[in-house]
Amino acid sequence: MVRRTGRRPGNPDTRDAILAAARSAFAEKGYDGASIRAIATGAGVDPALVHHYFGTKDKLFLAAMNMPLDPGEIIPEVLAGDPEGLGERLVRMFLTVWDSPAGKAGVGLLRSAMSSDWTARMFRDFVVTQVLRRVMNAVPMPPEEAPLRVSLVASQLAGLAMVRYVLKVEPLASTPREVLVAAVGPTIQRYIFGDLPKPKAAD
Amino acid sequence: MVRRTGRRPGNPDTRDAILAAARSAFAEKGYDGASIRAIATGAGVDPALVHHYFGTKDKLFLAAMNMPLDPGEIIPEVLAGDPEGLGERLVRMFLTVWDSPAGKAGVGLLRSAMSSDWTARMFRDFVVTQVLRRVMNAVPMPPEEAPLRVSLVASQLAGLAMVRYVLKVEPLASTPREVLVAAVGPTIQRYIFGDLPKPKAAD
Repeated sequence: MVRRTGRRPGNPDTRDAILAAARSAFAEKGYDGASIRAIATGAGVDPALVHHYFGTKDKLFLAAMNMPLDPGEIIPEVLAGDPEGLGERLVRMFLTVWDSPAGKAGVGLLRSAMSSDWTARMFRDFVVTQVLRRVMNAVPMPPEEAPLRVSLVASQLAGLAMVRYVLKVEPLASTPREVLVAAVGPTIQRYIFGDLPKPKAAD
Repeated sequence: MVRRTGRRPGNPDTRDAILAAARSAFAEKGYDGASIRAIATGAGVDPALVHHYFGTKDKLFLAAMNMPLDPGEIIPEVLAGDPEGLGERLVRMFLTVWDSPAGKAGVGLLRSAMSSDWTARMFRDFVVTQVLRRVMNAVPMPPEEAPLRVSLVASQLAGLAMVRYVLKVEPLASTPREVLVAAVGPTIQRYIFGDLPKPKAAD
């Protein structure tokens, strides 16, 4: 991971006011419902200033949830390349990020998503708007199957992060990355491309 | 799940004192290192009283971590039957427990394991002493492979619980149980019986 070395632009009070307004707006209306204009009004600033400080709504959303990385930069890299290797590339990228300094922030985020309804809601929105949509745009799969497939992938990756980095259950906590890539990659591959039962099956 | 309808036996103060002593002892020495004798001494009672109130050390451990169910009762049931269906049976049992009233306690336990080092340590001990050993005794697999296999299973099941019951990411939160059994069963099956990379592989 590239570490941020530059200083954040502008007045920190203004930046914080925008972040606070963004957190309320995302919590109240979700990612899609919260507009930059309404967030700017909430912070008492001009919408242009929100764009100036944070760039896109995606980036503002990630900053509001203290997400240490941008799926918009990572996911296209993982999706590029042969489809047969997608599962392994995804696991490798995921573990590389968690093994990096960003992993510490990830542990905090995961803990907070587990204990706070606000973070849990942000997390749900994150999976749908930042991950699911990007994957659906790039990987050929029937649109009605994509949500279940992506949430199955999320379940395996979230569990891996939880057991390896938060609970630190051995031997998984200290298993070399490439062993896990080989072990878990085929799971992800199957969730994305494999035969799955139809969502309309009865319980 | 069978709900407990009887009253707990004996003096609640004595019971609480034993539980408090057990929590300190398990936290300090782990499951194997904590003896019933030392726990009784810590609570200022006779060891026979600990057995009277809680039965076995396993049951005392589960009570100390507020675990709403006993893997000693559930795991043998799942392990019985044909090996080909083990993965699906395990997922079905896991989801049935989480969909039952015990699931609410599970959410609390998972949240607390994420935020407290004490619960995380209890959780690690739980996986090894209550789950891993029982599985290793019943499922034929090379003993040196069992720990990684079991912790991979734990990662998928923990992630499923997290995404479905705590974060409630859709559509996974409302997907019918049998759809998930069919989707996730083969993952568990592969982690238990499939080809996995050797743990000594380089990173």
